[in-house]
Amino acid sequence: MEAGFGDPAVARLVGWPARVARMVEVEAALGRALASAGVIPAEAAEAIGRACAAEDLDLDALSAEAASASTPVVPLVAALRSRGDELAAAWLHHGATSQDVVDTASALQTRDALDVITGRLEAVGDRCAELADAHRGTVSAGRTLGQQATPITFGLKAARWLGAFDRRIEQARWVRSRVLTVQLGGAAGTCAVYGAAGLAVAEALARELDLAVPDLPWHAERDRIVDLAGALAAIASTVGSVATDLVLLAQSEVGEVREARGAGPSSSAMPHKRNPTHAVAARAASRLALGELSVLIAAAGDHEHERAAGAWQAEWVALPSALARTAGALRRLEDSLRSLEVDADRASLNVDSQQGLTGSEGLAAALTPALGRPDAQALTGRLAASAAHQRRSLADVAAEDAQVTGVLDARALATALDPATALQLASALIDRALATHARTWRQEAP
Amino acid sequence: MEAGFGDPAVARLVGWPARVARMVEVEAALGRALASAGVIPAEAAEAIGRACAAEDLDLDALSAEAASASTPVVPLVAALRSRGDELAAAWLHHGATSQDVVDTASALQTRDALDVITGRLEAVGDRCAELADAHRGTVSAGRTLGQQATPITFGLKAARWLGAFDRRIEQARWVRSRVLTVQLGGAAGTCAVYGAAGLAVAEALARELDLAVPDLPWHAERDRIVDLAGALAAIASTVGSVATDLVLLAQSEVGEVREARGAGPSSSAMPHKRNPTHAVAARAASRLALGELSVLIAAAGDHEHERAAGAWQAEWVALPSALARTAGALRRLEDSLRSLEVDADRASLNVDSQQGLTGSEGLAAALTPALGRPDAQALTGRLAASAAHQRRSLADVAAEDAQVTGVLDARALATALDPATALQLASALIDRALATHARTWRQEAP
Amino acid sequence: MEAGFGDPAVARLVGWPARVARMVEVEAALGRALASAGVIPAEAAEAIGRACAAEDLDLDALSAEAASASTPVVPLVAALRSRGDELAAAWLHHGATSQDVVDTASALQTRDALDVITGRLEAVGDRCAELADAHRGTVSAGRTLGQQATPITFGLKAARWLGAFDRRIEQARWVRSRVLTVQLGGAAGTCAVYGAAGLAVAEALARELDLAVPDLPWHAERDRIVDLAGALAAIASTVGSVATDLVLLAQSEVGEVREARGAGPSSSAMPHKRNPTHAVAARAASRLALGELSVLIAAAGDHEHERAAGAWQAEWVALPSALARTAGALRRLEDSLRSLEVDADRASLNVDSQQGLTGSEGLAAALTPALGRPDAQALTGRLAASAAHQRRSLADVAAEDAQVTGVLDARALATALDPATALQLASALIDRALATHARTWRQEAP
Amino acid sequence: MEAGFGDPAVARLVGWPARVARMVEVEAALGRALASAGVIPAEAAEAIGRACAAEDLDLDALSAEAASASTPVVPLVAALRSRGDELAAAWLHHGATSQDVVDTASALQTRDALDVITGRLEAVGDRCAELADAHRGTVSAGRTLGQQATPITFGLKAARWLGAFDRRIEQARWVRSRVLTVQLGGAAGTCAVYGAAGLAVAEALARELDLAVPDLPWHAERDRIVDLAGALAAIASTVGSVATDLVLLAQSEVGEVREARGAGPSSSAMPHKRNPTHAVAARAASRLALGELSVLIAAAGDHEHERAAGAWQAEWVALPSALARTAGALRRLEDSLRSLEVDADRASLNVDSQQGLTGSEGLAAALTPALGRPDAQALTGRLAASAAHQRRSLADVAAEDAQVTGVLDARALATALDPATALQLASALIDRALATHARTWRQEAP
Repeated sequence: MEAGFGDPAVARLVGWPARVARMVEVEAALGRALASAGVIPAEAAEAIGRACAAEDLDLDALSAEAASASTPVVPLVAALRSRGDELAAAWLHHGATSQDVVDTASALQTRDALDVITGRLEAVGDRCAELADAHRGTVSAGRTLGQQATPITFGLKAARWLGAFDRRIEQARWVRSRVLTVQLGGAAGTCAVYGAAGLAVAEALARELDLAVPDLPWHAERDRIVDLAGALAAIASTVGSVATDLVLLAQSEVGEVREARGAGPSSSAMPHKRNPTHAVAARAASRLALGELSVLIAAAGDHEHERAAGAWQAEWVALPSALARTAGALRRLEDSLRSLEVDADRASLNVDSQQGLTGSEGLAAALTPALGRPDAQALTGRLAASAAHQRRSLADVAAEDAQVTGVLDARALATALDPATALQLASALIDRALATHARTWRQEAP
Repeated sequence: MEAGFGDPAVARLVGWPARVARMVEVEAALGRALASAGVIPAEAAEAIGRACAAEDLDLDALSAEAASASTPVVPLVAALRSRGDELAAAWLHHGATSQDVVDTASALQTRDALDVITGRLEAVGDRCAELADAHRGTVSAGRTLGQQATPITFGLKAARWLGAFDRRIEQARWVRSRVLTVQLGGAAGTCAVYGAAGLAVAEALARELDLAVPDLPWHAERDRIVDLAGALAAIASTVGSVATDLVLLAQSEVGEVREARGAGPSSSAMPHKRNPTHAVAARAASRLALGELSVLIAAAGDHEHERAAGAWQAEWVALPSALARTAGALRRLEDSLRSLEVDADRASLNVDSQQGLTGSEGLAAALTPALGRPDAQALTGRLAASAAHQRRSLADVAAEDAQVTGVLDARALATALDPATALQLASALIDRALATHARTWRQEAP
Repeated sequence: MEAGFGDPAVARLVGWPARVARMVEVEAALGRALASAGVIPAEAAEAIGRACAAEDLDLDALSAEAASASTPVVPLVAALRSRGDELAAAWLHHGATSQDVVDTASALQTRDALDVITGRLEAVGDRCAELADAHRGTVSAGRTLGQQATPITFGLKAARWLGAFDRRIEQARWVRSRVLTVQLGGAAGTCAVYGAAGLAVAEALARELDLAVPDLPWHAERDRIVDLAGALAAIASTVGSVATDLVLLAQSEVGEVREARGAGPSSSAMPHKRNPTHAVAARAASRLALGELSVLIAAAGDHEHERAAGAWQAEWVALPSALARTAGALRRLEDSLRSLEVDADRASLNVDSQQGLTGSEGLAAALTPALGRPDAQALTGRLAASAAHQRRSLADVAAEDAQVTGVLDARALATALDPATALQLASALIDRALATHARTWRQEAP
Repeated sequence: MEAGFGDPAVARLVGWPARVARMVEVEAALGRALASAGVIPAEAAEAIGRACAAEDLDLDALSAEAASASTPVVPLVAALRSRGDELAAAWLHHGATSQDVVDTASALQTRDALDVITGRLEAVGDRCAELADAHRGTVSAGRTLGQQATPITFGLKAARWLGAFDRRIEQARWVRSRVLTVQLGGAAGTCAVYGAAGLAVAEALARELDLAVPDLPWHAERDRIVDLAGALAAIASTVGSVATDLVLLAQSEVGEVREARGAGPSSSAMPHKRNPTHAVAARAASRLALGELSVLIAAAGDHEHERAAGAWQAEWVALPSALARTAGALRRLEDSLRSLEVDADRASLNVDSQQGLTGSEGLAAALTPALGRPDAQALTGRLAASAAHQRRSLADVAAEDAQVTGVLDARALATALDPATALQLASALIDRALATHARTWRQEAP
């Protein structure tokens, strides 16, 4: 059931086969790092490399053994040893502990997943930018607490989404540079077996794998994982919020957007339905991602001593799943936005259908210099109530009111109620978001 | 990575192949129900039954189609129709909506999973009962805020766990009778297509599948799901709490329990380690279950109108996963408890190692009639501080104190400090838990 | 800021002054229970009673001392002792531990809060019943995934809400009988100080306070608290879901309900706005309640040994706050429902505005006997698409289609598209919910 | 009950009186900004300033009105108008919406709270640095999964904590520069009333209040709030994790740390108890903070259109509470760390008490060059099992083993088992953390 809400690419990058491959890669790199730091002979590193190149690992057997051991590394190291010569067996995994291998492999997988997520953020952002630019003139109702408020443009709404996704990129980059960190501490985080060479080994391992070197091993300090979880939560919730807007805009009674689709019904009961399928899936994926992320955040506070008895192990499942679900939320949102048809006519009709009450802020503002804000607001409130009650337009009702006409002539009244008046700044705001987007992506990712 | 924390039996019962099989079963049962209520011809029900008996469904293709449709039912019905004759195709899924089929199939899967979970609760409870009975005389330190407090027995601790699991059974039964409910409402919950026969169809369908009939369709009222989530959360957190106790009791410096194990190391770095592997996995599984359960609880508040746009779809993933993880937490706890070795000697040594300070409550109580509680407590506090400071036993220090000996003779002092004095009620408390356990399981499950 | 989202009555019942009063009440009742079980002299119980009757406790000082001590009971007992005579001081709090007093006082406060919550559930249910009955004929659009689906009545929607609230009552009663349990175990849950009289004291205390007696003390088994949290979460999420429907129905473009209100604007910027203020507050309160409830659920899995070092203390804050917020969510929903104006004309117009596409299920069903479901659905899908595209009614488009008219005469077509056809069962469904509601409240609360 | 888990300073800065004061400050600053941008006369700004200087606001009345209105700004603006002259009344709150005032005031309060939190992070970090430096030679057992693993020093553990808090500072600074952002958009985020001057007004307002200017108003894009919530969650969980270590180290059977304390008991039942009161409170506060933070994270995904109907309002309560609870967690941890007594002798005894099994990694490493890792590990495993079984030291058992003595002479064996061998790098790791700490705090906050 997970397939519709995840990201197949990320699921592949963070799944069990990839985990095993990454752990093997870490063992091989550790061999080379140990040799480069003079801890083991160069031939040992080569022998380890050959053992790690074996392609006949039985993933199912490893999975079963890992499930009953405390760690997947114990059976993996045994399997690799049986594939190597004596020299490889002698020095494989030298001085390392399971968590070194699991956490470093996890960092590599996280990097892969973040690459996909970053790409999806860019794609979603690009599409928002297109929509923002294309619809800078598409007047529609701004809505607060579900009520029409004042006019906006659909482009401005898309520009706000764009701004949020560009901020997400910025944060993803910040987190990436902090969370993609090698783990190497040995049994209790002292690099005990390497003697004085410990730092050199850690640095060499990091170079091999293109990861950062932390000040200290971080077996039990999982605040970096919370940083990552926070970044993913912000992405997932941003997706959720945009998808919610799409679902609301696609409602039958609003109809300002719809997802174009190919052949085939989207309901098993109702032939006429045009459900915003992708946006719905994006909302579901967002919720699912937040569930796994809550596991990571809660667990981070319970890492005991030098290695946790439960909180760490929960990460093994929750982190890959959270990455896949977050990417899935972006994927489905991207599908929704790419297929999006914006109905500018309907947007305009919707504004009109409310007796032009979205003009009330503008009318009150125009009356304010003469009447002061309290009286201007009170008068506009009365006019709006009349318009609503009589189902006539605010413009007509206002034009008949002596207090209004005493202050505003017909042209000034029309100007006050014209959405264009309220939207003088909208295009400039959109341009700010577009400029930030361009700047965000010109910048090289760290 | 999920394998070590889930329950293979439940994973099978709630997985995609089982979901498809259950949805097919619902469609077949619906055919019979419609015929029995006179809505469709009996031959149509038979034809539907034959279409549903086909065993050549392509699960991967269905999964892919389901992932891109709004619902797995649209491609499933299409596939079944292509397997049936004209009569089957004409009446298959008649009057139903996707959610009817998904929710009813989910109820059937939930029933299967709850059966396993109930069995595991019974097994865990039985083992707790064994431990409670066998260790009713195993004196050990009661600990509050991590500090030794007054003596308990290990049996009493196990009895408290037992009580919690028996309460969990009671709640699981309560929830089961409420959540295992048929869903049948058609497009918007009105059973519109069946006319006046709607209730009869729902009742017949429920009879076919041995589920309860709700007053009304509950497409968007997911409070039953929260009831289920609450029950599972209480199970998962009870597992977590017991597993935490096991991990704490297994600490090197406490050593009152350990998990026996077969051959093979449990650490890739430290040959001497005897990790409480199962208890650790149980804690991790408990955390993972709570993550999925938080999705169900949060989603329940957001089901819009007659069918939710996201909150419902999130259930498709979160509910099966929560069931499997909760069952997995129980499974690993059961493994831990079954392999548990209790070290009564070590428990006794631990009490002694603290200068017998766990006797302070008893000493103060014995002094209270003569000195009043404030003075009795103050005096005992001073004696305890001396004992701790001098690393002598509280008994010795008290025996030298004139205020004490003025009130208690040597025998009374010994009685006051004897754990047996503090434990007069412990066996009776254990018996209460055992009696409740017996009563809980004599009672037939509903 | 909390005031708008809580419940002043509950806030008072669960606040600090009430907590102190309830703890004092527990100490006094414990004195009487000890005397009745023959553990302390009757005069001591009377003296304790007099000390506990003192009304000059300095709540602020107690709060400050409690904040720096591990427990509020240490300073409270000291303060009470200073108010009593020697006999009271000698026997006050005899054999009890802080958690006995805090947990038992908390049970009393929880009972008070549950009384209010139950009352609010009844009031909300009664109002839903009124709406269900009054609007059984108010045809409106059923909506799935935000799209108009088939016709329902507003009364049916209210009946579904009613059913959920009646189930909440049923669960609240179930939980109440399990969670309102005395706590009495002494330092580590063995009732050590009372010797063989321990059970008698616990039973007497429970009688004094009208609480249940547990099999064993439950200092560290907090599964009952999860039961309570689950019940509150189901209430809060049900409120959230109903409030979401109200906000959606009140949208400018839907306008089927609105909250009546007195004088005064609800926006500081827009004179015309009529925000669904109460429903919005109910949604916020629901979210806030779920936050505190997540603390209770997460903490329950971490109660170490015989008393937790952190998880228990978090309950002191999270439980009262969760009760107040849950009650507040109900309060604001009640305000919303009481002030609700249902616009039946608008509901009807909304159905019409969608070209009568909500009739598509009915049309397809009417065509099914002749064409089989696949062809009936496909034909209806084509007609619906034409109607939507041409902005004509489905009835008109269908009436011109030869395939339709070959099967259905004008009268049959009209019947197929008439909402009344789809709603044959709606009134019966409402009656089922009303009958359950009556039955739920005739039944005496346990 | 909240007092022990919050931070009085932060509670004051984020409470209702401060909220009102900050909202008034925003209205006054808006007046000046409007004047500086030429939107209103300079005299109007002055008049507004005078109205805002009034000190007679009735906070309770405002709170009550705010609770029943949709927003606290409606009654506040009314109250301020009644305090100003006509000119002030005419232009007060001109062009702004409630959310502009609430969000900007919230940013100011958040800044105040973050200042306190940053100060607390520095204090906690400084104390960790002291402990790291002072205890760089305090050998103790490293523990993984609750089992003694290999030797560490207490200083190294403190250095790891230090590293986490320094990373928290770094993130707090990053978030601070992004979340302390002015909000100004008017009714629907278009700055409609200000015409082309909108950006100038926003910039002037930001200057007045020393906040950043966002590209666009962010009424419904709450990803910045998730950034803040993520940062606070990482702080709270880091506190929780360190406090958990303290509670575990303070256990009676471990006894490596304790909180010094003044007079007075910490238990109402047990005179001898020395509970780690502050660490316990820090754990509770951490949990409570995470509850409120989960509200912020969940709500962020549900902000509809241009202003949310529920999700935003929940922030009003959850954000101040989360800030106070996070600061409270730090406060209690600081109290714990400041009062911490480290018992180096006990730490050393604890290592010895386990037959020196923490030397097994070192022994296996020393045997590896000769035997290869598999045989070295297997041999060490057998020796460790013998030592544990015979309750003799690993050193003695190893010294008698022919395979060992064939490879290692007495001196080499002693070196292999000497904790100093395993800890060659520990001091350098501590220095790295200390250097980062110094660098972190030399750096100016952005």
